[in-house]
Amino acid sequence: MPTVSDRGKIMPDSPIRKLGPLAEKAKAKGIKVYHLNIGQPDLPTPPEALAAIKNIDRTILEYTPSEGILSFRKKLVKYYQKFDIDVSVEDIIITSGGSEAVTFAFMSCLDPGDEIIVPEPAYANYEAFAIVAGAEIKSIAAKIEEGFSLPPVEEFEKLITPKTKGIMICNPNNPTGYLYTREEMNKIRDLVKKYDLYLFSDEVYREFCYTGAPYISAFHLEGIEQNVVLVDSVSKRYSECGLRIGALITKNEAVKKNVMKFCQARLSPPLIGQIAAEASLDADPDYMLNNYNEYVNRRKFLIDGLNRIDGVYSPIPMGAFYTVARLPVDNSDKFCAWLLSDFEYEGQTVMMAPASGFYTAANQGIDEVRIAYVLNKKDLAVCLKILEEALKVYPGSKVRQKAFSKENN
Amino acid sequence: MPTVSDRGKIMPDSPIRKLGPLAEKAKAKGIKVYHLNIGQPDLPTPPEALAAIKNIDRTILEYTPSEGILSFRKKLVKYYQKFDIDVSVEDIIITSGGSEAVTFAFMSCLDPGDEIIVPEPAYANYEAFAIVAGAEIKSIAAKIEEGFSLPPVEEFEKLITPKTKGIMICNPNNPTGYLYTREEMNKIRDLVKKYDLYLFSDEVYREFCYTGAPYISAFHLEGIEQNVVLVDSVSKRYSECGLRIGALITKNEAVKKNVMKFCQARLSPPLIGQIAAEASLDADPDYMLNNYNEYVNRRKFLIDGLNRIDGVYSPIPMGAFYTVARLPVDNSDKFCAWLLSDFEYEGQTVMMAPASGFYTAANQGIDEVRIAYVLNKKDLAVCLKILEEALKVYPGSKVRQKAFSKENN
Repeated sequence: MPTVSDRGKIMPDSPIRKLGPLAEKAKAKGIKVYHLNIGQPDLPTPPEALAAIKNIDRTILEYTPSEGILSFRKKLVKYYQKFDIDVSVEDIIITSGGSEAVTFAFMSCLDPGDEIIVPEPAYANYEAFAIVAGAEIKSIAAKIEEGFSLPPVEEFEKLITPKTKGIMICNPNNPTGYLYTREEMNKIRDLVKKYDLYLFSDEVYREFCYTGAPYISAFHLEGIEQNVVLVDSVSKRYSECGLRIGALITKNEAVKKNVMKFCQARLSPPLIGQIAAEASLDADPDYMLNNYNEYVNRRKFLIDGLNRIDGVYSPIPMGAFYTVARLPVDNSDKFCAWLLSDFEYEGQTVMMAPASGFYTAANQGIDEVRIAYVLNKKDLAVCLKILEEALKVYPGSKVRQKAFSKENN
Repeated sequence: MPTVSDRGKIMPDSPIRKLGPLAEKAKAKGIKVYHLNIGQPDLPTPPEALAAIKNIDRTILEYTPSEGILSFRKKLVKYYQKFDIDVSVEDIIITSGGSEAVTFAFMSCLDPGDEIIVPEPAYANYEAFAIVAGAEIKSIAAKIEEGFSLPPVEEFEKLITPKTKGIMICNPNNPTGYLYTREEMNKIRDLVKKYDLYLFSDEVYREFCYTGAPYISAFHLEGIEQNVVLVDSVSKRYSECGLRIGALITKNEAVKKNVMKFCQARLSPPLIGQIAAEASLDADPDYMLNNYNEYVNRRKFLIDGLNRIDGVYSPIPMGAFYTVARLPVDNSDKFCAWLLSDFEYEGQTVMMAPASGFYTAANQGIDEVRIAYVLNKKDLAVCLKILEEALKVYPGSKVRQKAFSKENN
C-alpha cells in the first residue's frame, strides 16, 4: 500500500469534532446532549434567503464566475460601506466559506517554511490551513486573566524573523469573544508596517459587538492598505453556515492575481449559496436586531451563570458568540470526554470544546473550554446546572477535591 | 509590500478562462460568441433537483457533516452498484465539486517533491492541484494519430522513480473523449501493482460512453482496491455544475483518515447542493436518456463536420462531451485569440480552448484545440461554418497559405 502524505499526518484532528463519537454514544444511551461545542447558531436564516432559494427560476444550475456573481459582489461593496470599509467590487472575491478564503490567502501569500504569528487561543483551523500551505504558525498566548487582550508588542517582535510573512487575527475573536481596541489595532498596524507583513484579518463576527466599543476593521488602519487580506463569511451573521459562502477581500493586486488562480482552478463558488447570501444582505433590520439582542441576553445570562459556579471563571466577551472559560478541573480534554462518557444529570449532559485545540503550543489552555452560546436561555440554564453538578462529582475536579478535603478535616 | 507566494506564481492561468477578456471585448463590439471552450452543458438540470431546492422546508441552513449528508452517501452506494462499483457508505466522502476531491486526494497522498504520472492532454487543473500539494506532474503525451489511446507502458516505466507516488487518469477523458479499453485499464492496474502506486481516477463522465465499449472503472480492477482514489462529481452528468458537489471514494483507511482531516478543516460541503444532488439521483431515466441521445447526435454531427473542413482532423471521441481536434494553423493559442479579436463571420465567432493548456510539457498541442459540444446542433452547424471561414483567412492558416500559393503558381 502506498504511504499517505506527512502533511495529512500532521494535520490536527478537529478539536470540536473529535469528541463526536463519544457524543453519539451518549445519545445512543438515551442521554440528551446540549451542544455548546459548535459555532452553529440555532437562530433562523433570514426569510429573504429562504425565499430566494425557493424562487430560483433557472433551468440550468451553471457555474458562476470564479470570483463570484457580480451583483452579489456589488451589493457587498455597499454592505462594507456601512462599516466604513471602503472597497471596490474588484477587491472582493467570493469563496466557498471563510475556510476557503483563509486557505487561498495562505496559499497565495505564504510558501513552505514561511511563518505567521497568531495570538492564541485562536480558531483551530488556521493551523490546518497553514499546514496546507506548508507554513508555520508561531503563537503568542493571550491570557485569560487579561481577558485575552492583545499580548504585548514585544512578544510579537521576539518572534519576528526573516521568515515571518504575516500576522493573523480574528476580530471579534473566535474562541474568546475579545474585541480589539483602537489602540491595540494601531499597535498591530505599526508592527505590520515596520516589518512589512501581511495582516490576515478574520472579521466574520463584526455584526456581533456588544459593549459599545467600536469594531475596528483591518481596513480602517491607515498606511497598510496593501498588506491587508480580510476574510469574511455570511455563515454566522445570517445563520446560514451550510451555504458555504465567504469572501476574501484585498486591495493588493499581486495577491488578487494569485488568489484568482486558485479560484479558477476550483472553477466556481456555490451558485445557490451565492443567490441566498445576496438575498441575505437585504435581511430586515429587525431580523438582525432580534438576533443581536438574543445574543446580548444569552451572553449576560451565560457569563453571569458561569461566574457564579464555584471555581469557574469567564472573562466578559465583547463580541462573537463564544467565551473561553476556566474550569476547576485537572484537564479539560479529559473533563469534556468524561461529561459525555461517564456523566449525566437527569438524563442530560453538555458537550463543550476543550481549549487545548485552540492553542498550537503544548500545555496551554488545559483548564479552559470554549463555550458557544448558540442555545436559548432556557437551555443555557440547564447547561449551567449540568456543569455545576458535574464539577461536584468529576474525579479531576478541584472543587470536589476541596469539598472532599474539608469534609475530612 | 510583502511578496506573494512562489506557489501562486507558478500556478498556471486557466487555459479556458484566459481568453475571457478577449471574448468580453468581442461581445462589447456586438459580436455573438459561441462558447465551445467550456465544460458547462446547456442541457437542463433534472426537474427533481430543482424541485428539491424549491421544497426545502428548513428554517436554518446548517452545516452538514464534514463527510456529507448520510442519506445522500447511502444513495450513492446504490448508484455506483449500477456500474458494478462496490463501495460502502464509509468509502464515500462528499466534496465541494470534483475539484476539491482531486485537491484532497493529492493533499492526503502526496508530499512536496512527490511525482505523479499523467497521460496528456489532461484536464488542466490537475496541474494546479498538484502545485497546491507541492507535487510534480510527469507527463506522457498521448498522440492524436492514435486517437489519444494509452501511451505504451514502457513510457510510464521510464518516468517511474522513487518519488513516483501515483498515476492520474480521467476516464472517459476530458479533454480528448477517449475511453480506456479493458486491456489498457489492465496495463494501468499492473503498473499500479508492480510499483505500489496510487491510481487517482477521475470518472465524472461515466454516464457518457457512446460506442458500446464498456466503461471500466478503476474499482473494477482486481488487486489494487487499496490503491484507488476515485474522483466523482454530479456537475456534468446532471448539468448542475453550480452546485459544487463531488465525491472522493476510496477503500484505503489511511487515505480516508487524512482526507477527513482536510474535510473537517473546511467544515462542510454545501448543504443545498447536497440536497439537490441527492434528488438528482432520482432523475427520470428518460431525462438521462434524452441527454445521452442529444450528446450522441451532437458528437456525430460535430466530428463529421470537423473532418469535412479542409485540413482539420478530429479523432472520434468515445465518451464525455469534448474532442481534441488538429487544426491547420501555426499556433492554436494565437488562432483562438485571433478568432475573438480580429475575426467575425456575419457578426459571429467561436471561442475554443487552445490545447496547449492541457499539456504541462512545452510545445505540445500547438495546433490542437479542445471543442466542447455543449451547444445544440443548430449552433454547432454555425460554429463549423465560422471555423471553416476563419481558416480561409487566418494569417497563420496552412489552408490559406496553400490556397494562396496555388493562386500564385
